[in-house]
Amino acid sequence: MATSPEVAAVVITPEEFLEHWQGHRRLTRRVIEAFPEESLFDFSVGSMRPFGQLAVELLSMAEPMVRGAATGEWTELDRSGIDSREKVLRLWDESTRQMNELWPKIPVERFHETITAFGQYEGPTYDLLLYVVDNEVHHRGQGYVYLRALGIEPPPFWVRD
Amino acid sequence: MATSPEVAAVVITPEEFLEHWQGHRRLTRRVIEAFPEESLFDFSVGSMRPFGQLAVELLSMAEPMVRGAATGEWTELDRSGIDSREKVLRLWDESTRQMNELWPKIPVERFHETITAFGQYEGPTYDLLLYVVDNEVHHRGQGYVYLRALGIEPPPFWVRD
Repeated sequence: MATSPEVAAVVITPEEFLEHWQGHRRLTRRVIEAFPEESLFDFSVGSMRPFGQLAVELLSMAEPMVRGAATGEWTELDRSGIDSREKVLRLWDESTRQMNELWPKIPVERFHETITAFGQYEGPTYDLLLYVVDNEVHHRGQGYVYLRALGIEPPPFWVRD
Repeated sequence: MATSPEVAAVVITPEEFLEHWQGHRRLTRRVIEAFPEESLFDFSVGSMRPFGQLAVELLSMAEPMVRGAATGEWTELDRSGIDSREKVLRLWDESTRQMNELWPKIPVERFHETITAFGQYEGPTYDLLLYVVDNEVHHRGQGYVYLRALGIEPPPFWVRD
């Protein structure tokens, strides 16, 4: 296969990255749904934050990170009143739509430019984006333990559709 | 900045991917080290697998996945006798060295070729590699909960050096 070195040095394209991330976000949505309403903001293990709080953190990072990468505007999630599973899921779906709209607006060269996210985190854009995805996978893994401790079978990790 | 569409469509290069992964693996190593010897293979929450068993699963996937992607040979980890923190850490460091050696041998076009990993998981190579990294982050997040439940402060998530 004849490819130039530049073309070949691609592990993942922007379209593939977004699809990979939205696959994770579909799974995280199922984990949020799997929590009983009364446990989402009340239950945890080892004095950690309940999964509802972790989900709000994820909401505060995902769409705002994509918006910042695309536009240079860094917004803060208004966390007031996000106190039910239904509200978390509604914001989750709104973020999904906005991320899909904003993503193609990230200039392709931006991924390797150094930016300062949220006015304080400096790094190459691809690294900051990976951090947000990894942070989601990290906290969702913690949600799996909470669900197991509640006697609930979590959704399968490998299903992303 | 003048870049061709092909060059620009890069979120992450192979070198960046390996460094990102090894950063995660350095953190996971610290999580393994943070477990008291007696808890690594005995303690868990919600009837899940202890973190030692999860670490052995990670060992069985990381280096063998890179070897398979580089050479087409799929090897199985010999799990017998991996029953102490010291042995897990020794195998971890051996994997680190081997992954660094094998990685540059993955032909660049391979990342977007469809392969069958371990004789059963079919997908584009980049997707299979991401799965292995995500699986590590997922299980390590569970290890954080185990450590907190043991009253141990886990290593900071954002430190990767």
